[in-house]
Amino acid sequence: MKNTFGSSVCVTLFGESHGAKIGAVLDGLAPGIPVDEDLIRHQLTLRRPAGRISTARQEQDAFDIVSGVFEGHTTGTPLTILIPNSDTRSGDYRRGALRPGHADYTAHVKYHGFEDYRGGGHFSGRITAALTAAGAIAIGALRGRGIRIATHVARCAGIADAPFSNPETQTEMLNQMTFAVLDEAKGEEMRTAIEKAAERGDSVGGVLETLVTGMPAGVGEPWFDTLESMLAHGLFAIPAVKGVEFGDGFALAEKCGSEANDPFVLKDGKTVTATNRNGGINGGISNGMPILFRCAVKPTPSIALPQQSVNAEGTAEETLTLGGRHDPAIVHRARVVADSVTALVLCDALALRFGTDWLTGANV
Amino acid sequence: MKNTFGSSVCVTLFGESHGAKIGAVLDGLAPGIPVDEDLIRHQLTLRRPAGRISTARQEQDAFDIVSGVFEGHTTGTPLTILIPNSDTRSGDYRRGALRPGHADYTAHVKYHGFEDYRGGGHFSGRITAALTAAGAIAIGALRGRGIRIATHVARCAGIADAPFSNPETQTEMLNQMTFAVLDEAKGEEMRTAIEKAAERGDSVGGVLETLVTGMPAGVGEPWFDTLESMLAHGLFAIPAVKGVEFGDGFALAEKCGSEANDPFVLKDGKTVTATNRNGGINGGISNGMPILFRCAVKPTPSIALPQQSVNAEGTAEETLTLGGRHDPAIVHRARVVADSVTALVLCDALALRFGTDWLTGANV
Amino acid sequence: MKNTFGSSVCVTLFGESHGAKIGAVLDGLAPGIPVDEDLIRHQLTLRRPAGRISTARQEQDAFDIVSGVFEGHTTGTPLTILIPNSDTRSGDYRRGALRPGHADYTAHVKYHGFEDYRGGGHFSGRITAALTAAGAIAIGALRGRGIRIATHVARCAGIADAPFSNPETQTEMLNQMTFAVLDEAKGEEMRTAIEKAAERGDSVGGVLETLVTGMPAGVGEPWFDTLESMLAHGLFAIPAVKGVEFGDGFALAEKCGSEANDPFVLKDGKTVTATNRNGGINGGISNGMPILFRCAVKPTPSIALPQQSVNAEGTAEETLTLGGRHDPAIVHRARVVADSVTALVLCDALALRFGTDWLTGANV
Amino acid sequence: MKNTFGSSVCVTLFGESHGAKIGAVLDGLAPGIPVDEDLIRHQLTLRRPAGRISTARQEQDAFDIVSGVFEGHTTGTPLTILIPNSDTRSGDYRRGALRPGHADYTAHVKYHGFEDYRGGGHFSGRITAALTAAGAIAIGALRGRGIRIATHVARCAGIADAPFSNPETQTEMLNQMTFAVLDEAKGEEMRTAIEKAAERGDSVGGVLETLVTGMPAGVGEPWFDTLESMLAHGLFAIPAVKGVEFGDGFALAEKCGSEANDPFVLKDGKTVTATNRNGGINGGISNGMPILFRCAVKPTPSIALPQQSVNAEGTAEETLTLGGRHDPAIVHRARVVADSVTALVLCDALALRFGTDWLTGANV
Repeated sequence: MKNTFGSSVCVTLFGESHGAKIGAVLDGLAPGIPVDEDLIRHQLTLRRPAGRISTARQEQDAFDIVSGVFEGHTTGTPLTILIPNSDTRSGDYRRGALRPGHADYTAHVKYHGFEDYRGGGHFSGRITAALTAAGAIAIGALRGRGIRIATHVARCAGIADAPFSNPETQTEMLNQMTFAVLDEAKGEEMRTAIEKAAERGDSVGGVLETLVTGMPAGVGEPWFDTLESMLAHGLFAIPAVKGVEFGDGFALAEKCGSEANDPFVLKDGKTVTATNRNGGINGGISNGMPILFRCAVKPTPSIALPQQSVNAEGTAEETLTLGGRHDPAIVHRARVVADSVTALVLCDALALRFGTDWLTGANV
Repeated sequence: MKNTFGSSVCVTLFGESHGAKIGAVLDGLAPGIPVDEDLIRHQLTLRRPAGRISTARQEQDAFDIVSGVFEGHTTGTPLTILIPNSDTRSGDYRRGALRPGHADYTAHVKYHGFEDYRGGGHFSGRITAALTAAGAIAIGALRGRGIRIATHVARCAGIADAPFSNPETQTEMLNQMTFAVLDEAKGEEMRTAIEKAAERGDSVGGVLETLVTGMPAGVGEPWFDTLESMLAHGLFAIPAVKGVEFGDGFALAEKCGSEANDPFVLKDGKTVTATNRNGGINGGISNGMPILFRCAVKPTPSIALPQQSVNAEGTAEETLTLGGRHDPAIVHRARVVADSVTALVLCDALALRFGTDWLTGANV
Repeated sequence: MKNTFGSSVCVTLFGESHGAKIGAVLDGLAPGIPVDEDLIRHQLTLRRPAGRISTARQEQDAFDIVSGVFEGHTTGTPLTILIPNSDTRSGDYRRGALRPGHADYTAHVKYHGFEDYRGGGHFSGRITAALTAAGAIAIGALRGRGIRIATHVARCAGIADAPFSNPETQTEMLNQMTFAVLDEAKGEEMRTAIEKAAERGDSVGGVLETLVTGMPAGVGEPWFDTLESMLAHGLFAIPAVKGVEFGDGFALAEKCGSEANDPFVLKDGKTVTATNRNGGINGGISNGMPILFRCAVKPTPSIALPQQSVNAEGTAEETLTLGGRHDPAIVHRARVVADSVTALVLCDALALRFGTDWLTGANV
Repeated sequence: MKNTFGSSVCVTLFGESHGAKIGAVLDGLAPGIPVDEDLIRHQLTLRRPAGRISTARQEQDAFDIVSGVFEGHTTGTPLTILIPNSDTRSGDYRRGALRPGHADYTAHVKYHGFEDYRGGGHFSGRITAALTAAGAIAIGALRGRGIRIATHVARCAGIADAPFSNPETQTEMLNQMTFAVLDEAKGEEMRTAIEKAAERGDSVGGVLETLVTGMPAGVGEPWFDTLESMLAHGLFAIPAVKGVEFGDGFALAEKCGSEANDPFVLKDGKTVTATNRNGGINGGISNGMPILFRCAVKPTPSIALPQQSVNAEGTAEETLTLGGRHDPAIVHRARVVADSVTALVLCDALALRFGTDWLTGANV
């Protein structure tokens, strides 16, 4: 479906960059889940641009939950979060030259010119604030059942972060960091590279790596609602994501079978795999190992450098020089969006498998 | 949904490796599409194992269309294709040690031991024959509207094929080749590498690259049914696919914005992009340029080398030595499956956008 | 799906009777549809309780469109309408005895006590205000293509209204009436009967009859998304609807085939039926005749008379005497809700059939 | 979706009256359900025409389960049932005059003449044999959890059967009867009336009443996937069904609230209702009482009497005189189809609520 995603637990997104409000409706989440507004605020803060490596636009991201929460817990009926757009400067944008790398042209073709073009309208990354807020509730629900999600900037501007080495402590640490990396020195290098790109009027991209621990085995609905299909479906909805790979992903394609298969062993009487090259998923179903995947995030398409373009009417070529405020990188901000999509997909997959109340756990 | 995929045009898959029949129901395709049984046969032949680089299992892949075709054309109502399983040797398989890299363990957890474990059962690559047959009809329908799909083995066993240079002639050529490569010398190297892996009792993986020409702009339903989301959803349902990337994909993440954006230019009065690093999709909507993506295909998990494993009951570790017939590579066979999924997704996206009859075209 | 309905054009409902806001997200409607806020206001007024035959609760039904409209037209992206709850008196309600005929008990079982029980919470008829607002936009979109919907109170308190005799003029008339009947004298009788029931502390029910003119033939997606299935699905979501029948409905069951079949004739070179006992639908597909159906609306379950009940904990029987403000009839108010559901279903069915832009019509 | 119905447990139908095979794919049913082929055969026999009150067409209804069953139990993966069409006489049908009351005209408009028109093609009641076979498996699964479904011919040719008085014994009895009535004398009257209609070259309709016992409370997903919405959606897909009502249905609309509400009482420490006028559903969610609903079945549209019609091309009026074999009534045969749809919907609703394995029960 267009702006609704999920089967049993689903989220509906709405809003435009320069409209009155953006928001999300989170439906089908189990009743009785504690709603932690501080966690929502925390996640929104992680998504918010900060310092010299981000746009100067200051979004307050105040939010209002107007339905679906009663006495601090989810009711099981639709939970609606509204986020007002306060700091919008429509004057920065004009209809005209199509911004390369954005949805300006494709939206114009699809919506016949009726689209709200200001600041990208409905296609603005701004909408991910609503997704982040909804995702925070899903993240909280999963934590209540011992399922934890964390994402780090695995690559940025050609610089590689360290891989996960100690998931138990690292997931907790990453979720507190504004620029989430496992090796802080590498993070510093990345930020310097981002600043340099900004100085050139350019932008950089990166790769996000997400780890999920505590996921029970046996979840996923092949052939078509495999866990990989469901996750990829959601992840490719995140603006700028152009690649998704599970486990060793594209590197697996270079290996032999004897190097790619994860041998089974018994550990404390439980069947586990000795390695996790398949990212915790076999045949589209979780195998009880950590779920691991990576998303390629392209560089921010909004850059200060002049670009070759065409006007919206398709009648003349123009050189486009963007004013306004732009991010020289979004990969570090997209991190919480990846976490949110992951949490929403897992809540859905778990509800499909174990019923609508499973996440409520001992409360019921 | 589990074994049904698509919204307006959808496919339902069924069957097990060693059951009576496998098959597919293709529903919602426009009425009046000529059904070319030769094309179905051709595609099934391309999927079929051939020569020393494939399993010795000889599937005849006879098929029967038992509904949905009348006087040589689609009726618009469900089209059902049945493929009998003739050459099955159940004796080659026994319940017991879980095959690493396969769905044996996860299926056992999910289906509580009631799954048909023989030859992978419902999780066997065999089921892709039904998907290929259904896809062939979708491929034919798209050709009727000038939309053409072709996939080549872009990488295999560490060897790279040439990139697309002349889509018009190359798509036609690839669709005739058993081992689809753009540079035949590279293909020869790949086949030699596959044979060597087979001699070692091992297997290799690869990368498939798919190109779609003739796709109209304005197709895709953001935020969540983006063309990338829909395609990735289907592609990750193909067994062994562990990564999907669009345009320059993961390589985009290493570039600057000024290198990643596709500038707009006017060509014959039409807005096009000067480059196609975004793979024909912006903001999840087709932009009229060729759609380009790659799938990482892991090496065949069935290998002759002994592997460490555990029995299905989870009570003892075992060394697994697989008998039976196995493919040292499937990437070249998975190619038609990628084409099929692509065709089915595009038919669906086009029907959602332009209505159920668009593919019928001038016939109506 | 739970609170989202529709495939191509879909609506998501949220909110509780005594929460901060209720609302609806209308997604997938074609871009370029003029949004007439006066029509929304008009429909909300028709739904609002009025005079002695309705609850004394005065809902202002101010609404805010916070997304999806730009320069007076739909953008094609999600349109969100918010309606604040202003006049709520939570003191009128207490958790305790289950109200017979309401969802108190079933919600308690399903949501484990976490439901917002005040005033019926998410199960309140109040939520239909949001559905009405979204429906108004769909109604406007259909009018732009010559498709008109009207509903009258065909029966109330045992009194029958006249049947449709002149659809062209009557649909327009009904859409202006607060208490929509074709025979005003019968309407007066009905209102008197409602007042008498109110005096007794009781309530009455009725039957709504809906007529749709201008619907093109060939719309509906059998076997399962027949027009009857889609409409009934939506209509049974309206609180208090306990029956739906198309054409002559249950009366058809009493007839012979020779009396039930609608003979085909040519009229102005077009195939039409001489009678319309099947309500404009054959085999689940529209036949170009007016679509006609009826909904049974049960009497308002909230009555002033004492009722036998049980407390929410299921530990003791209680006599329930409801305070608060209640409607002695809702059938006349449910009328615009039936219109709204009808409009939303038809927009969806038309978009599935003819594509997402059909409703935009000549504008594109 | 078009020919697929359900979310977690779903069925896909295919086939044409005079095609090679019809069939159904049942997907998502829990693994480990015993598959009783005798029950399938029994249900198919009840659906099959018999004696003078039915068409002389003798369908053998041999069926083949070609996937999804292993060692006598469901695997949890798609279960496919094929039924060959053996006794088809295409010569009885010709393209030409549209049969009133059938889908001939609407299919012609929708499928542009590409539809298989022989014997109604995909719109033939014949397809319900596949639905019946799939339904039989769902019926068996529900029985394993103590949920039982039975339907009787509540009205036929103006004659009323007795109402349910003792569900426990009557459901069992009805499921063994070819012409299912609670009062056998009334059944005899009905059969006589059907024979008389047949002698006149005419047909009759009727009303089916379905009772479900053992359904747990708390099942249904409002607002839009209420149990009533889901059931009505499926029931209106049955050819000839033109009305559906729950509990007292349309009769409720004539009552006062004090007569329509079901008072709550405690019985053996459990909350139940003293009456069941709402048919076991409040607010769209099951309340633990028996679920009760009725379907209006119109008279068979195929009659021997001459009828006024138009040719398929829409160029000339014709008098249509049908040859071939036709049922003077189908209401008694439609009974098992109503049971089947009910069972499939309930399996789906239960799986959505309690997870995919709930029906497996103690086996897992």
